[in-house]
Amino acid sequence: MTQAGEPTDGDARVQDLVARLGADIVRTSAEQREAYRYDWARDPDAQLPLAVVLPREVGQVQETMRWATEHGVVVVPRGAGSGLSGGASAQPDGIVLCLERMTTIEVDPATRTARAQAGALNVDIKKVAAKDGLWYPPDPSSYEISTIGGNVATNAGGLCCVKYGVTVDYIMGLQVVLADGRLIELGGPRIKDVAGLNLIKLLVGSEGTLGIVTQVLCRLVPKLAAPATLVAMFATVEDAARAVVATCATSRPSMVELMDNASINAVEDFQPMGLDRSVGAMLLIQSDAAGESRTLELQAAREACEQAAAQEIFETDDPAEGEMFVQARRAVFPAVERLGAYMLEDVGAPVPKLPELVGGVAAIAAEHDLRIVTVAHAGDGNAHPVIVYDATDADEKARAARAFTEIMALALSIGGTITGEHGIGRLKQPLLRNQLGDDVLDLQHAIRKVWDPDGLLNPGAGY
Amino acid sequence: MTQAGEPTDGDARVQDLVARLGADIVRTSAEQREAYRYDWARDPDAQLPLAVVLPREVGQVQETMRWATEHGVVVVPRGAGSGLSGGASAQPDGIVLCLERMTTIEVDPATRTARAQAGALNVDIKKVAAKDGLWYPPDPSSYEISTIGGNVATNAGGLCCVKYGVTVDYIMGLQVVLADGRLIELGGPRIKDVAGLNLIKLLVGSEGTLGIVTQVLCRLVPKLAAPATLVAMFATVEDAARAVVATCATSRPSMVELMDNASINAVEDFQPMGLDRSVGAMLLIQSDAAGESRTLELQAAREACEQAAAQEIFETDDPAEGEMFVQARRAVFPAVERLGAYMLEDVGAPVPKLPELVGGVAAIAAEHDLRIVTVAHAGDGNAHPVIVYDATDADEKARAARAFTEIMALALSIGGTITGEHGIGRLKQPLLRNQLGDDVLDLQHAIRKVWDPDGLLNPGAGY
Repeated sequence: MTQAGEPTDGDARVQDLVARLGADIVRTSAEQREAYRYDWARDPDAQLPLAVVLPREVGQVQETMRWATEHGVVVVPRGAGSGLSGGASAQPDGIVLCLERMTTIEVDPATRTARAQAGALNVDIKKVAAKDGLWYPPDPSSYEISTIGGNVATNAGGLCCVKYGVTVDYIMGLQVVLADGRLIELGGPRIKDVAGLNLIKLLVGSEGTLGIVTQVLCRLVPKLAAPATLVAMFATVEDAARAVVATCATSRPSMVELMDNASINAVEDFQPMGLDRSVGAMLLIQSDAAGESRTLELQAAREACEQAAAQEIFETDDPAEGEMFVQARRAVFPAVERLGAYMLEDVGAPVPKLPELVGGVAAIAAEHDLRIVTVAHAGDGNAHPVIVYDATDADEKARAARAFTEIMALALSIGGTITGEHGIGRLKQPLLRNQLGDDVLDLQHAIRKVWDPDGLLNPGAGY
Repeated sequence: MTQAGEPTDGDARVQDLVARLGADIVRTSAEQREAYRYDWARDPDAQLPLAVVLPREVGQVQETMRWATEHGVVVVPRGAGSGLSGGASAQPDGIVLCLERMTTIEVDPATRTARAQAGALNVDIKKVAAKDGLWYPPDPSSYEISTIGGNVATNAGGLCCVKYGVTVDYIMGLQVVLADGRLIELGGPRIKDVAGLNLIKLLVGSEGTLGIVTQVLCRLVPKLAAPATLVAMFATVEDAARAVVATCATSRPSMVELMDNASINAVEDFQPMGLDRSVGAMLLIQSDAAGESRTLELQAAREACEQAAAQEIFETDDPAEGEMFVQARRAVFPAVERLGAYMLEDVGAPVPKLPELVGGVAAIAAEHDLRIVTVAHAGDGNAHPVIVYDATDADEKARAARAFTEIMALALSIGGTITGEHGIGRLKQPLLRNQLGDDVLDLQHAIRKVWDPDGLLNPGAGY
């Protein structure tokens, strides 16, 4: 076991790796290792890694995995470290294999694809694609800081996914380094291909447990149209959720986001935007449809909001004005981070159960006397209750932990999921068996063993 | 080995199965077994099965698999038998497990889903969904006769898939009987769910090799808008293909189908529709976008066709008139079936390579002096060259077989696939290793063994 505060360059295994890849690629100082200990989940069980490997090319990833297999060293793959469930928590006596330096992006307008190395940021793929009038839709809240490799690992969702789908819907090809260092190529710029099992879709969302994704072929779409926006205020989150259910039963808006009272106030405290601090919840609905469809979609949303007792409804065709509300929505996590320690939930439910889900979360907050800030990709039934607590208050911390588990149990009790887009990581494993059952979990473990017979790839993470 | 012309009810294994399920479920006469020998591929290697099992409920499927495991009997799963690559060819000393009697469909408008037993026809899901103003998009040419279970087995595509995606994009849940008879439930009416590996997407397209899919939860969308139609005539298939490449580079039409001269003439011989028999190829492009988007999409298509030297362009906003052309396109297979024996190809390529693909097919036809009728889901780069031959002419038959292989090799040489939507089945295995490579194929075999350790599920089919 490595000791904090000491470099690991005296470790024979590390010396071998440095000899094979060089000191520019393999980092061994205490500071450098500490910098890659946690991802954004700040998992308290994360450990100082044995070393941090920062490859510049795929051959170095292969060499790292050959070395790991030879020495039986555990490997935690990492992109930007923006994961929210501890999927990149460093492991004792294991290395962190971080792809942040592999960032090239090539767009091919003819096939409408982007070939990006795993460390490329989501936002940079969008920017490069935009030069050709193209767009990469999936937009996790972290899109400006998260890598496409990390997006693939968690099958990241986002705000536009209610209409445009999630990461897995846009991945046409993967380059993957297997546990023993072999390189495989899957897929290509072919829209339809049913030759053999679809290993691409198995890898997306596999949280670094099956192989190291080094390159991604993304499907692009023509640039999306600027949306019109409807904002509605409600007395309660349940009312807002009922409006979501009615809206999504008949139309396909391009965005359906919910902010509760606590999230509105957190944003206003952080950077005042003039949101109404008194309302129970706010819905943000956009339509990027054309012509009559846009009118019909907004009309359906308005009627749904009215029938759900909306207190106020505001509409704008001005994309800039609409974007201000989207910015308010995106500001929730930065705003909440300032409030202290927090546990970020990511539960999902069938859309008609959304009122029960958000209502139940409010009840759990009241029962445990906790501050829970809730935002939701409401049109997908995917909610992010954030449990804010004082880390120095042991009792409150324990109540927060109970609430975290109770929210997952609530989601399962209404036919939902314990994670909609963040992944199981290391923080959500306790309830996974309850969701999947023994038979399905056993199958998953057996498939994992096919890819990783020695158990080197992100052990303890995922399923 | 069972003998043709004799019932199998004297076989001890069959007697055991009849005792467990009854004679209504287990069919043993020579006639009944012959009726389930072939699927639409008419695989010459298909054998008379040991028995045909026609379950009415999932418990009977489980009992069948328990029996199969106990006796080590091979099981070929089957829906409507409309598969085109021999995936349901009956196997010697094996049973056919046909789900055609399990046809219930329940639509839940609140979650916008349809829960259908595997034997339900695609068209019936569409019909039931339509009662609630909803739609199940994937539309293989066989949609009126093929089952959802079969669609799942092959990850079936279709005409609207160029805009709306293929089967895998619409499957939210599966009920699956494992090889040993255990029942698992995957997914549910949750739009986003990343808890564990995505086994649903692994099962879709697995051609009955991992388990018996008994029930499918389909995602529905609001009823699609009636489309506008553009039809363009070209001197050559390459010209038409170039128009497709240009159209799809900038817009997302809801249909982009190509018919070559041979397919136009086959349809006119079968049921005259007034198509121009003299043109080299016809493109059928539809847009179901609203308002200005529709105008822009059709305009982009028109300009692309003009630049690709279209000889004639016709546009209509009348859905009924547009549907006539779609019917002509759908009539190609029935028309070709009358011409004699045939081998139906299903190759795919990156869209920009479509001119090379269809041009190459024409060259192969000329070289081997064969009649090859080509239609294509052109916007997806997915072509169906149909090699028509005289089965009584041994030399022509041999040339047809060579052409079949050469077309697959052509697709691979331009970065394509040997199957876009029909599956590998039993007819396309020879070139699969060339496409996937040893490492990927080995992984697939190992995953298969996890699900089916005794090799009972559709052996010889798929990968």
